Amino acid sequence: MTLPAQMKALIQLHDGYSGTQTGPNITDLTPFLTDETVSVPAPGDGQAVIKVHLAAVNPSDIHFIKGEYGQPRIKGVPAGFEGLGEVVAGDTPLLGQRVSFFASASGAWAEYAMTDASGLVPCRPDLAEVDAAGQLVNPLTAIAMFDIVKESGADSFVLNAAGSQLGKLLIALGRDHGIKPIAVVRRTAQAESLRALGAAEVIVTGELDPLGTAKDVFQTLKPRILLDAVGDQFTSDLFFAMPSHARWVNYGKLSTDAPALTQLGQMIFQNKQIEGFWLTRWMKEVDPSRIPQAFVEIQERFISGTWKTDVAGIVPLSNAMDKLPEVLARPDGKAFIDPRA
Amino acid sequence: MTLPAQMKALIQLHDGYSGTQTGPNITDLTPFLTDETVSVPAPGDGQAVIKVHLAAVNPSDIHFIKGEYGQPRIKGVPAGFEGLGEVVAGDTPLLGQRVSFFASASGAWAEYAMTDASGLVPCRPDLAEVDAAGQLVNPLTAIAMFDIVKESGADSFVLNAAGSQLGKLLIALGRDHGIKPIAVVRRTAQAESLRALGAAEVIVTGELDPLGTAKDVFQTLKPRILLDAVGDQFTSDLFFAMPSHARWVNYGKLSTDAPALTQLGQMIFQNKQIEGFWLTRWMKEVDPSRIPQAFVEIQERFISGTWKTDVAGIVPLSNAMDKLPEVLARPDGKAFIDPRA
Repeated sequence: MTLPAQMKALIQLHDGYSGTQTGPNITDLTPFLTDETVSVPAPGDGQAVIKVHLAAVNPSDIHFIKGEYGQPRIKGVPAGFEGLGEVVAGDTPLLGQRVSFFASASGAWAEYAMTDASGLVPCRPDLAEVDAAGQLVNPLTAIAMFDIVKESGADSFVLNAAGSQLGKLLIALGRDHGIKPIAVVRRTAQAESLRALGAAEVIVTGELDPLGTAKDVFQTLKPRILLDAVGDQFTSDLFFAMPSHARWVNYGKLSTDAPALTQLGQMIFQNKQIEGFWLTRWMKEVDPSRIPQAFVEIQERFISGTWKTDVAGIVPLSNAMDKLPEVLARPDGKAFIDPRA
Repeated sequence: MTLPAQMKALIQLHDGYSGTQTGPNITDLTPFLTDETVSVPAPGDGQAVIKVHLAAVNPSDIHFIKGEYGQPRIKGVPAGFEGLGEVVAGDTPLLGQRVSFFASASGAWAEYAMTDASGLVPCRPDLAEVDAAGQLVNPLTAIAMFDIVKESGADSFVLNAAGSQLGKLLIALGRDHGIKPIAVVRRTAQAESLRALGAAEVIVTGELDPLGTAKDVFQTLKPRILLDAVGDQFTSDLFFAMPSHARWVNYGKLSTDAPALTQLGQMIFQNKQIEGFWLTRWMKEVDPSRIPQAFVEIQERFISGTWKTDVAGIVPLSNAMDKLPEVLARPDGKAFIDPRA
């Protein structure tokens, strides 16, 4: 297969970190990205080039392009962590196959992406494009963090930003394993659909005395794990309202709060703990057989319908600079970039 | 041996918790304790009564009598967690022996204390009274937390309140095991003596830009463990200035700050962790052989002089209500109560 020399891509304008902490919201991409024609990446040893069919847009992508993520930006390189496509070059038996990928070498918001061939995930033919394009970051994180929940031994757990795509995956896992999800959301409007999905309780932070509600719920359900994508003061308050041995597992930072530890003594006397979860580290540390096993489960879940991808919108690569912020602002769904359009 | 029916004791005036968080300073004991004559405790199954020779006063005692410690007060029962004395009643082969004890049933700030016989620690005859009276809480905590430091694999560690009795024990352990102590103290005057004791670096919070100093030190020494008895904002700032994989181990709350987590993302990307240490839990969870082994080491250290107890003052029980706050206010030494005087 002959690759073209050039491709369209959303290219990063900056190197390294910004030093700011402004959260994953974005109204204008132009300070960070530019829509350009650049060279198609050439694979080195162990690398594969993928013709992108559909790229996902995750909160971590926005943190990253703003220079606020845990790894440095590289100026001139396309953005976009995750996508779906066809393997078109590289030393891999998967040449010609449809794969999900995490773009470690050249980003997914482009006509062609490049990554380590060892990380490619072949997709079942009956797996829908939106499910396949987002099957790494959110679904694998959900599986990994739910392993933590199962190991906690409790029969309930707390998650916030519960209306997010990842939140909904976690609620469905809780429902299917009989471990009650306690969902924390901002808006009353989200509560009903999350209950229908399988949330045992919904705490709405926009309502009166959400902490009081949480305390009542915790008294009955005794959750041990708090899966936190927000990192605000209310999260800290929730943590200190949880029973002994609670673990606050932070994996995202939707809020720009610097939450205060108002009852530090609970770390001592109630054996509580605060830690972080990062998929990248988990993948290095977990028993390697867990990952392919997880992808079998992930694809089966999407195909059987126990998981579903809510789509906020699919934006053509050619006008993503213009349209992406507007689609990202829509509640309760995931945005995608289509480089074929 | 016939016990008297009555004894002098400092009796708690309140039950349970106060709900306040005012720290371990105290200027007046009268809101919390009263000097009274009460019945000598009678041992139940598995309990022992000890004629107290000398009782220690630790920060945890002050937190406790103020209703701010991790276990509830009992009105009418003597205060005081720790002491030295002679076993005078109870079903134990240690009857008549000199023991250190943790007063679980009736407190040590009294002529007689009562505890579980299984927790009595026989003392070598050459162990000084002040060393023996304080050999449980601080020395065992030092040994236990230094095990955490050793397990971290780093060749340095950070400790604050480093001028405290416990701080000095930890510095000596670091010195003797070749794991460099980075000592954090408030006053410049403390720095020289801690360096002489074995601190590799001293960070003085009262000096200009202590965080900048800490960053330079951490760059070179790369400590992984922060042993924290303070829990203030500077502790949080230190933690976030430490390298990847740092663990903030809180074991005390000298400050009344509610420290803010200004860089929560480090939990995710740098695998940092916040946890608590409580000796009571450690004693339940550790390999049981570690405890008697630790007491052999503790007594040997005091007798050989690699550890020493700095005494701020010894107050007779009969006027402890008056004099104790003044002795506690002296820097850099430990207060004791003598019920024989």
